Amino acid sequence: MKTIGVVGASGYSGGELLRILAGHPGVEVAYATSRSQAGKAVHTLHPNLRGVLDLEFTSIPEKKVGANCDLVFTAVPHGAAMDIVPNLLDAGAKVVDLSGDFRFKDLSIYEKYYNQKHRQPGLKAVYGLPEIHRKEIKKADLVSNPGCYPTTAILGLAPIIKEGIVVADRIIADAKSGISGAGASPTDTTHFCTANESVLAYNASSHRHMPEIEQELKFFDKNVVVSFVPHIVPLTRGLSTTLHMFLKKDGGEEGIKRLYEVFYKDEPFIRVLDVGETPRLSAVRGSNFNDIGCFKIDKERKRLVVVSAHDNLVKGAAGQAVQNMNLMLGFEEVEGLAMAGLHP
Amino acid sequence: MKTIGVVGASGYSGGELLRILAGHPGVEVAYATSRSQAGKAVHTLHPNLRGVLDLEFTSIPEKKVGANCDLVFTAVPHGAAMDIVPNLLDAGAKVVDLSGDFRFKDLSIYEKYYNQKHRQPGLKAVYGLPEIHRKEIKKADLVSNPGCYPTTAILGLAPIIKEGIVVADRIIADAKSGISGAGASPTDTTHFCTANESVLAYNASSHRHMPEIEQELKFFDKNVVVSFVPHIVPLTRGLSTTLHMFLKKDGGEEGIKRLYEVFYKDEPFIRVLDVGETPRLSAVRGSNFNDIGCFKIDKERKRLVVVSAHDNLVKGAAGQAVQNMNLMLGFEEVEGLAMAGLHP
Amino acid sequence: MKTIGVVGASGYSGGELLRILAGHPGVEVAYATSRSQAGKAVHTLHPNLRGVLDLEFTSIPEKKVGANCDLVFTAVPHGAAMDIVPNLLDAGAKVVDLSGDFRFKDLSIYEKYYNQKHRQPGLKAVYGLPEIHRKEIKKADLVSNPGCYPTTAILGLAPIIKEGIVVADRIIADAKSGISGAGASPTDTTHFCTANESVLAYNASSHRHMPEIEQELKFFDKNVVVSFVPHIVPLTRGLSTTLHMFLKKDGGEEGIKRLYEVFYKDEPFIRVLDVGETPRLSAVRGSNFNDIGCFKIDKERKRLVVVSAHDNLVKGAAGQAVQNMNLMLGFEEVEGLAMAGLHP
Amino acid sequence: MKTIGVVGASGYSGGELLRILAGHPGVEVAYATSRSQAGKAVHTLHPNLRGVLDLEFTSIPEKKVGANCDLVFTAVPHGAAMDIVPNLLDAGAKVVDLSGDFRFKDLSIYEKYYNQKHRQPGLKAVYGLPEIHRKEIKKADLVSNPGCYPTTAILGLAPIIKEGIVVADRIIADAKSGISGAGASPTDTTHFCTANESVLAYNASSHRHMPEIEQELKFFDKNVVVSFVPHIVPLTRGLSTTLHMFLKKDGGEEGIKRLYEVFYKDEPFIRVLDVGETPRLSAVRGSNFNDIGCFKIDKERKRLVVVSAHDNLVKGAAGQAVQNMNLMLGFEEVEGLAMAGLHP
Repeated sequence: MKTIGVVGASGYSGGELLRILAGHPGVEVAYATSRSQAGKAVHTLHPNLRGVLDLEFTSIPEKKVGANCDLVFTAVPHGAAMDIVPNLLDAGAKVVDLSGDFRFKDLSIYEKYYNQKHRQPGLKAVYGLPEIHRKEIKKADLVSNPGCYPTTAILGLAPIIKEGIVVADRIIADAKSGISGAGASPTDTTHFCTANESVLAYNASSHRHMPEIEQELKFFDKNVVVSFVPHIVPLTRGLSTTLHMFLKKDGGEEGIKRLYEVFYKDEPFIRVLDVGETPRLSAVRGSNFNDIGCFKIDKERKRLVVVSAHDNLVKGAAGQAVQNMNLMLGFEEVEGLAMAGLHP
Repeated sequence: MKTIGVVGASGYSGGELLRILAGHPGVEVAYATSRSQAGKAVHTLHPNLRGVLDLEFTSIPEKKVGANCDLVFTAVPHGAAMDIVPNLLDAGAKVVDLSGDFRFKDLSIYEKYYNQKHRQPGLKAVYGLPEIHRKEIKKADLVSNPGCYPTTAILGLAPIIKEGIVVADRIIADAKSGISGAGASPTDTTHFCTANESVLAYNASSHRHMPEIEQELKFFDKNVVVSFVPHIVPLTRGLSTTLHMFLKKDGGEEGIKRLYEVFYKDEPFIRVLDVGETPRLSAVRGSNFNDIGCFKIDKERKRLVVVSAHDNLVKGAAGQAVQNMNLMLGFEEVEGLAMAGLHP
Repeated sequence: MKTIGVVGASGYSGGELLRILAGHPGVEVAYATSRSQAGKAVHTLHPNLRGVLDLEFTSIPEKKVGANCDLVFTAVPHGAAMDIVPNLLDAGAKVVDLSGDFRFKDLSIYEKYYNQKHRQPGLKAVYGLPEIHRKEIKKADLVSNPGCYPTTAILGLAPIIKEGIVVADRIIADAKSGISGAGASPTDTTHFCTANESVLAYNASSHRHMPEIEQELKFFDKNVVVSFVPHIVPLTRGLSTTLHMFLKKDGGEEGIKRLYEVFYKDEPFIRVLDVGETPRLSAVRGSNFNDIGCFKIDKERKRLVVVSAHDNLVKGAAGQAVQNMNLMLGFEEVEGLAMAGLHP
Repeated sequence: MKTIGVVGASGYSGGELLRILAGHPGVEVAYATSRSQAGKAVHTLHPNLRGVLDLEFTSIPEKKVGANCDLVFTAVPHGAAMDIVPNLLDAGAKVVDLSGDFRFKDLSIYEKYYNQKHRQPGLKAVYGLPEIHRKEIKKADLVSNPGCYPTTAILGLAPIIKEGIVVADRIIADAKSGISGAGASPTDTTHFCTANESVLAYNASSHRHMPEIEQELKFFDKNVVVSFVPHIVPLTRGLSTTLHMFLKKDGGEEGIKRLYEVFYKDEPFIRVLDVGETPRLSAVRGSNFNDIGCFKIDKERKRLVVVSAHDNLVKGAAGQAVQNMNLMLGFEEVEGLAMAGLHP
């Protein structure tokens, strides 16, 4: 039995970590920290955990959390993580960080897109996308959990970029996310009457997940340029990214699909759908799957469309973090993550 | 390992049975029957089950299903069940029937509210609400799974009716259900543009779940009359019933709450909330919990409000059916049903 | 051409007033005040008004607004209105106040339910429900616009209470409102992820609209007691109230319907539906209609169900306010209010 | 007063035509035809029209409709229109056809994308996008009303294509539509539980609106190729299209915006937003506006993002049809179309 801490447990990612960890047979959650909620039962903020996880929020120092835990998840805002993570590592815990603070090899990109100085330039993390970095994750002390948008985009693009069959610098990723991706804080954007019956493009030219997508795809092709535009659509959970590409040569729709099947052979959480079948958010809701489908070619215009989708709070955040934990602590990779999606 | 069949597996309840059974360590689903879908993979209709449950719909005879299974769930329309269930029982299987065909002691009520002759008057079932009939369920060969509305209403009313502190013949149950309760068939009612941004009362004077509620509550007080009106609200899963009662004497809000805590002591799937706390559908979504709360008293008007809520496809259908199966086959009652709700 | 002011124009009711007034041929909006938004174009907060109403928010003193306007709408929070309204009246304007400050004859009820001292005990308003108080409204300088819930409940109950055919002290009003009723401020309650896929009863024993409903119905029967419970359902606009009643004598469903037709004969904004037809929110969305229907009787339980519905921002707020304005300023009652609902 | 007919009045476009025409001071609707609904009041299908438009569906022959009307709208399925329209024209009526049957100059494109032979090759229509073809529309007897997706895409692209500053054959139009665009028939796609909490790309490589967009943009640049992918998102009304382009030269965001302002100077229904401001569906809901905004440039990747949005049933169908009618019959272009959007 491993001992686990969640730092920043009051938000949606924190709550989702607690939900998944509560059903994981090999771990016990010792700490769920939240400065503002300390002393309250976790079910006051996460009502689904009543009777499921008997725990209170605490605000004890990170050093102590790190000293008493085998692994700690940090689910705190960008900028805050880089001050907390070193303390946890120093105290002897492994860490999976869900913020953007440790995702970039090139810190100048971080500093440009996150608009702040990086205060831990010497601390290196493994990018926690198991489908690409599984080996390094197993040996890592610090894993930086990918962003939700990048997870769908990288998984949806990697097999095709690797093959070099599309125009690498003309890739469009048009993503549609549920509102839980905007966090639990009430704002004008997350107000029901703003988000309901609405579609909203935002950060259309400069979202910080764009260079994160490009960083990972550049392993496969240095010339990759991804034009990424995220949208908020009126649903709670789920993220679907439509990938528009231009073909350099036409391998046929079934051939394209086969590339994906080969690339993701034996991957427990990637499901490659049939040609013409588009991922359904209900198929992934609450589960750790990322579904990839469509694979439609428009021969006249020499273009290819692939759609990649997951639950932004699971494979896009807490589920992937637990998948990383499983690899780091020597559990079966699927332990605690075998739940099917909630359809309808 | 027990062998299980699901007859009528293409609808929402059938799909939800397959989802839950796929995660149950003690059973194997041998048959998922559907006349219209025979030969297709179950994930073509239930996309969440791709990679989770490798099974095809079949249309083999019920006798054979019954002969090869320890227990069979029948998730077919009212009226069809009474012709299928006897064949399954005759073949040696235990049965949990999710239709309304075997819910009534007094068949004249069935015939009035379901508008058809009952063709199996001699076949008796146990009403499958474990919180009230656990002992009989354990010994039963045929369990009739309660309706979704009755489950919330009976669980929300039983402790208070038993105590005799409200006017028994002036109880109002005003229920709000998600649209999955209307089934998977596309109709004018289930069209997105009809149901979205809408609230619709239906069968306001004569819903067949009304006498079902009364039948069970009459165990506690013969004079019970429940005025029940169901509504469709724009959400997929979840059912919340507001119970309006008039007090004969005032025990105080905390006293009322305590009645529920005592009544449901040790019940694994009933959560009694705090005074003033109202059940949240996200707390029960995808889980087998039924939450009961509110417990507010208006002293001036001598009235009491209690709210009872669950996921209509889980505790209101497939989850409760599996809970019954666990009792009938000697499993732990919570086996396969320990998942927390999906919040948010 | 009459000159109109809107004090407190940045909220949903204020925006809706501007939308309706912009289409009214007999008026010109001279002022839209908002302390926090002064200087911005009204379309920055109400994007539907871009190109429709060329106006900026201002923060000029109320005295000046009152002096330059024929009529002023006050759409400010409860408690604030009672300090503003006298200044407007003193300056010579007529006023329609949308808050609860002037709705009660008996100020002790106001002080109990609004939890504050009334600072204008001498200032009397006419309750602005034209279907009941049209004559007085025409002559009034100050009209207190009804609450959204009371409008549906009073209109849905008045004809039947007047006839004395139901048990007057056992009336249940179970209301379901869209989230715009909670206002434009972002809160935990109005967060999309809280409100979506959710049903939430609130203030179940003590909502302040309850005594407002009773006050008006007591004109018809002194013994009226209304047990009122409001709910938030996941939609933006629309409010549907289910009225549960117990019959003293059975007039028959068609007879009940006829009572309503007679009571509302010639009313331009009340539509009496057929027996068994339930009001649809899409039928009233964006319009000033209040639809009343259902009229179902359960003979066995001697009960009657009536459903009354409208758009909470129109007939439940701004539309009714303009209807009152029309009466107060001598316009045709339907002027500017003839739009059909937006279906689907 | 002009006499108007609506052929195929039972669907969403037909209902929306009736709603708008009911508020148009210069016309009277003489016929609303529907074979299946003949004899019923129009408000049985369009409940918003109760008390607004006192009319019954009829099934009289088209020749008679044409003979008695100044103008007839045909809102019938693709393929059916080409058999009906000639009869109406022969009988002397002008016609606005809302189907795709008369939208293409090159009938081979029609036959490829609509998968049927065109049976009226000699009958030529004017493409009814007033912002581009106003002059011809005024003189036309037959106007072919544009598709909803093409309206947003053409209006959002025309100014920029005309200037030749983007790579013309690498344009991506990623569109998100509400479900009313799928029509009033209940199908698996339009089932609430399918569409809710979902995003669905469809016809990703071959939607028939793609060549329609290209046809119109080729007036400005022969080399235009538009990669179009439509999506269904969980809302009733509204359509937002994100246009991804690659810049040949960088004019600056304000410069881009100015191109649109100049192009749409004096257009009554096009609103050009500020740089960084994205169209909100609530701003256009129920109105005839098409809003265009965003105008963000990513200098590093030399790309431009523009977003164009409207209400698919109004500017995307019935509203634009009435705008065409106004031009064809000599009314003010905005007559009957001045309503603001319904926000929130």
